[in-house]
Amino acid sequence: MLRGLAAIDEIELTAVVNVGDDDRIYGLHLSPDLDTVVYTLAGVHSETQGWGRTDETWNVMDELAGFPLDSTFRLGDRDLALNLYRTTRVSEGATLSEVTGELSKALGVACRVLPVSDDPVRTKVRTAEEWLDFQDYFVRRRHSVTVSEVRFDGVTDARPAPGVLDALSDCDAVVIGPSNPFLSIWPILAVPGVREAMGGKRVMAVSPLIGGAAVKGPLAQLLVSLGYSLDTAGISSTYDDLLTDLVVHRGDEPSIGIGPRVHATDTLIQEPAAAARLASEMISWLR
Amino acid sequence: MLRGLAAIDEIELTAVVNVGDDDRIYGLHLSPDLDTVVYTLAGVHSETQGWGRTDETWNVMDELAGFPLDSTFRLGDRDLALNLYRTTRVSEGATLSEVTGELSKALGVACRVLPVSDDPVRTKVRTAEEWLDFQDYFVRRRHSVTVSEVRFDGVTDARPAPGVLDALSDCDAVVIGPSNPFLSIWPILAVPGVREAMGGKRVMAVSPLIGGAAVKGPLAQLLVSLGYSLDTAGISSTYDDLLTDLVVHRGDEPSIGIGPRVHATDTLIQEPAAAARLASEMISWLR
Repeated sequence: MLRGLAAIDEIELTAVVNVGDDDRIYGLHLSPDLDTVVYTLAGVHSETQGWGRTDETWNVMDELAGFPLDSTFRLGDRDLALNLYRTTRVSEGATLSEVTGELSKALGVACRVLPVSDDPVRTKVRTAEEWLDFQDYFVRRRHSVTVSEVRFDGVTDARPAPGVLDALSDCDAVVIGPSNPFLSIWPILAVPGVREAMGGKRVMAVSPLIGGAAVKGPLAQLLVSLGYSLDTAGISSTYDDLLTDLVVHRGDEPSIGIGPRVHATDTLIQEPAAAARLASEMISWLR
Repeated sequence: MLRGLAAIDEIELTAVVNVGDDDRIYGLHLSPDLDTVVYTLAGVHSETQGWGRTDETWNVMDELAGFPLDSTFRLGDRDLALNLYRTTRVSEGATLSEVTGELSKALGVACRVLPVSDDPVRTKVRTAEEWLDFQDYFVRRRHSVTVSEVRFDGVTDARPAPGVLDALSDCDAVVIGPSNPFLSIWPILAVPGVREAMGGKRVMAVSPLIGGAAVKGPLAQLLVSLGYSLDTAGISSTYDDLLTDLVVHRGDEPSIGIGPRVHATDTLIQEPAAAARLASEMISWLR
């Protein structure tokens, strides 16, 4: 969706990105959501893996497999280079938003990409037994456990990164991607000041459901285990009364009246052309 | 030399290794001297590079060159894997000596390899203008500046790693490799207790000079700029009165009487067979 919006010349776009998935693995500062956004906008995101780089090699990971270490979390050689860069710069005192700007520039990304905060926010999920770090849950356990609660450690002390509040309060509209509300959008909205900055704005979300089901990931399980209905109305409820508009996949229109205005179209984005088409429809509806 | 000694079945060998070259680069915990020792004993040290691994690839470094970062310090993909392993384990609370044991095991090294200390010791060299970190001096400036002083930050608080003092005080003899005394041996001897543990021992050093010159590195410049004579007597002096025996290259015998007993042979070690021959000569002299 972001790639589609970025291709429309007439709009000025700022991407505000979740940092709740960030973690320190192999001593490196990982920011998976920021990297997916930057890689996607740079046209080097691996669609086949669903994360990391295209044209990737795995020499470091292949060697690491010879050491007695959990190497479930696989980073390709090119992806590692980016993470070494970020880790070095952060250790030198650069902020995450500065580094993200540098990486965007190095990869030729014109759209402004901002982490929601330069301060650490860490998503944790509660299972029957324990609280898990996000990457333990998502990568190591492949989100196969039932989650009864989600929290964002550090978020009450996190300050919005420079530019985030201005971008949200000065814009004509905020659009929320077809992401997992609990894991990707809630940790953004939970940063103090972010939700307030959107007060009175057009806020349009794209539902991540297709044919009443999640395309990938643990969305369906989370909707159910966290007490929401597994349908478009459930998605809308996860945002409380934040949305003015909700874009849903054709056929997924809610059967009951919900708060936001509903727009139906084909929301399944499998190639750049589909992203471009969805983005222009969204802009038309917002206009 | 160590490889030659390790090949002699009848001796029990412990290598006590300098950590003054250790540094944090790209966010990783680097221990170049430990790695050179472990790689050499494992038979995977790159003789052509003089550091790092054989059969190395450079995918990560090639990618890193696209980011605005000083990437003078090059780590191959396999070398990076080892450094990611060490960084991860140290961040989990493992000591450097524990990690070195794990790495030795993973690489099939039987000889016990110990860092002289698990605490940080950082070699700094003074130039006309400033104090430089070791890697800035050695790698980034290719040791091309004149050094007027050497110091080892942290060494007064550094405790010998577990096993180091026992190895030195319980052994039949200590041998000191044909290394740079100032940069590789002094930071070992400066750890409190190390020199004392060798009291009354046979201590045999191998001079790093060949035909009165240094085979590689900044040894010759350092001998001169730090006030020692550029000859075997100068090498001996760098150890004060520690040595009982000094092995020198044939033709480099000191012309004046020096403290330690002098043994002359071919000390130029260019392949494993030469290391084995030198090691058995050393053992014979010690016996």
